[in-house]
Amino acid sequence: MSSAVDESIRRYGETEPLIHAFVRYDAEPSLLMDAALEATAATGTLVRVPIAVKDIFDTAGSPTERGSALYAGRVAENDADVVRNLRAAGAIIVGKTVTAELAMAHPGPTRNPWDLSRTSGGSSMGSAAAVAAGVVPFAIGSQTNGSVVRPAAFCGVVGFKPSLGRLSREGMFVTSGTLDQVGGFARSVQKVASLVAAMAGEPLARWWSDDRTPPKLAALRTGEWEHADVAAQERFQADVDRLAAAGGPIAWPKPPPELDDALRLLQTIMYFEQARALETDLRGRESLVSEIARRHLAEGAAISEQTYRDALRARERLAEAFAAWATPYDAVLTPPAVGEAPTPETTGDPRFCTRWSLIGAPVIVIPSGLGPHRLPLGLQLVAAPGDDRRLIAAAAWCESKLPWIGAPPL
Amino acid sequence: MSSAVDESIRRYGETEPLIHAFVRYDAEPSLLMDAALEATAATGTLVRVPIAVKDIFDTAGSPTERGSALYAGRVAENDADVVRNLRAAGAIIVGKTVTAELAMAHPGPTRNPWDLSRTSGGSSMGSAAAVAAGVVPFAIGSQTNGSVVRPAAFCGVVGFKPSLGRLSREGMFVTSGTLDQVGGFARSVQKVASLVAAMAGEPLARWWSDDRTPPKLAALRTGEWEHADVAAQERFQADVDRLAAAGGPIAWPKPPPELDDALRLLQTIMYFEQARALETDLRGRESLVSEIARRHLAEGAAISEQTYRDALRARERLAEAFAAWATPYDAVLTPPAVGEAPTPETTGDPRFCTRWSLIGAPVIVIPSGLGPHRLPLGLQLVAAPGDDRRLIAAAAWCESKLPWIGAPPL
Repeated sequence: MSSAVDESIRRYGETEPLIHAFVRYDAEPSLLMDAALEATAATGTLVRVPIAVKDIFDTAGSPTERGSALYAGRVAENDADVVRNLRAAGAIIVGKTVTAELAMAHPGPTRNPWDLSRTSGGSSMGSAAAVAAGVVPFAIGSQTNGSVVRPAAFCGVVGFKPSLGRLSREGMFVTSGTLDQVGGFARSVQKVASLVAAMAGEPLARWWSDDRTPPKLAALRTGEWEHADVAAQERFQADVDRLAAAGGPIAWPKPPPELDDALRLLQTIMYFEQARALETDLRGRESLVSEIARRHLAEGAAISEQTYRDALRARERLAEAFAAWATPYDAVLTPPAVGEAPTPETTGDPRFCTRWSLIGAPVIVIPSGLGPHRLPLGLQLVAAPGDDRRLIAAAAWCESKLPWIGAPPL
Repeated sequence: MSSAVDESIRRYGETEPLIHAFVRYDAEPSLLMDAALEATAATGTLVRVPIAVKDIFDTAGSPTERGSALYAGRVAENDADVVRNLRAAGAIIVGKTVTAELAMAHPGPTRNPWDLSRTSGGSSMGSAAAVAAGVVPFAIGSQTNGSVVRPAAFCGVVGFKPSLGRLSREGMFVTSGTLDQVGGFARSVQKVASLVAAMAGEPLARWWSDDRTPPKLAALRTGEWEHADVAAQERFQADVDRLAAAGGPIAWPKPPPELDDALRLLQTIMYFEQARALETDLRGRESLVSEIARRHLAEGAAISEQTYRDALRARERLAEAFAAWATPYDAVLTPPAVGEAPTPETTGDPRFCTRWSLIGAPVIVIPSGLGPHRLPLGLQLVAAPGDDRRLIAAAAWCESKLPWIGAPPL
């Protein structure tokens, strides 16, 4: 009988020449592990489930090059904590996925399974594409600004980035200690919850409840609303209407004004920290990184310690204001992106992700429809930091009320 | 807590620079498999047990080069049947061991763990040395003439070659269809029985019984007795005396006269078949094999079909005569080799193995003492083809009556 690993290998062979989602795919070792786990009646919540890992997470004994010539030939000694936890649940790590350069802005080669002329988003571009194309049911990603939410929305899969600090970053390539966050991709809310529970090494019940009473929802149009294209605006309004019809009125509370400063704060903190984190590895080797990375890192190097400290403090205030504002709701609804996936010169505009990334709020994206170019559009759900379980329950309810968008024609 | 794989990696690091037992040792994948099997509570008779495999047996996805430049870069697609069965029992294949060139005569680099100026025997030289040095508790080998018995005797470990046909050769490099046989190494008779049962994918009870009544033993001095050195002769006589004292009289029946023709028949069949098996792969690439291999293959190519057919028929008669003669005994005792391990220009003299290899009889070697150079000497036990279980029970009894020789000073 064909196993999930067999199926993964088959889909990899069919789709990889088109989508370029992987930097490394280990068919043979995966088959061996699969056979061993089958033969020895292994137990665990993810036994024999193939999983792909963004190439900024260490996987013991195999290359982990972080999408950059700076780290060409780098072999990880140990598994990242989340990888080790997945293996402990019986999962099989089948490969490492393309990341934007250094998990920053310069795109890798991955294309969107829904339309090969479009990006799959970034920086977790290979992970989202691999799940969308059916190569793996689960993949690990990370987010500093919008690196989980955006590719999930563009690829029409469920993306979940838990609260900052909820998942271990040990063995992950961290360049912004304040902002780098671990997340994952799957094809349903329940599945992404099971993935993240296994990544945490925790029982599913800490993340998932079977309660399906209609959640208390708020809808939010922040300052970036005008940047969304008409299709994204209409999609969002239609999703809110549909959910209100299914579960009752949805509030449109006025957001805390601090939120509007989020982009400046995030860029200050991120660039400042990245410039210092990469300083040593980069010295004398600047030609190995992209123009856009050099520009951002130079920008970060020029930020003063005082400006950075001020930004950190402002971030704390913003987080507190948002938490107080959001706590009455099980989830706050916003668009995940300005529209469908763009052409692949960039990984897309992250502005709808910035506020929640900055404060480490948990976010989930669920697909909710197709746009004018038959590319996915989705809905983003946000909660106060720490409210992951509540957010997941709300997202599962919303998912059940929204239409299934189908699979990419690949 | 340290696992058997951790211990294997530690011993590999300590001993490999001295003994050169491996052509490939996969520390990282083995650790990953070990962690996965532990975490998923895997079951099986050899769960998390590290095993080394002679490099003529295919291991899926990894190089299997058969000790020859003829097969440099050859990567096996599938596991050999015996390897697959071991993995199904939960074993972890940690590496591939040095084989004499093409599992024939030209030695590889492996040295004897008891004395680095001596050979570990051949052709399964790396497997026997790896078990003797404590790098692995089990290793797979093969025998066409004396390739399990001789290295086991030289390295002071238990070697077992079951009856011809008892273990699958699928995925093994077979150059003599009539004579190539699968075997294994361990550090006790019971352990080698558990290894071979797992290689066969069978319950241990098909190979092992707990019956410890004294076996019916015969002792045999065939025509090669005079070639054994004094130490080997004295060791054999002392072993027989000791076993007789423990279990009662041991018969010294006159062997069937057909046995004396064994070497000629074996060489005729082996060289004839090897020359034809390798003909295609060797064409135009003769410079890639050793002088001794070229000589043997040329010799085989010159043997006529008629001579070969006559040898096969004579082999059948010899096998029938031996089976009738040996059936009354649980095991027939003979020396395994002419003496201690020689210096490494050759893999040693196989003449004490030839008769039993020729007819596909099951054979076990157990260590029984140290010779004048503090190198192991052992005792060979033979039974009629098919009497593997009886032979193992007899060998376990003998083992319990003979002294333990200790471990090599490495």
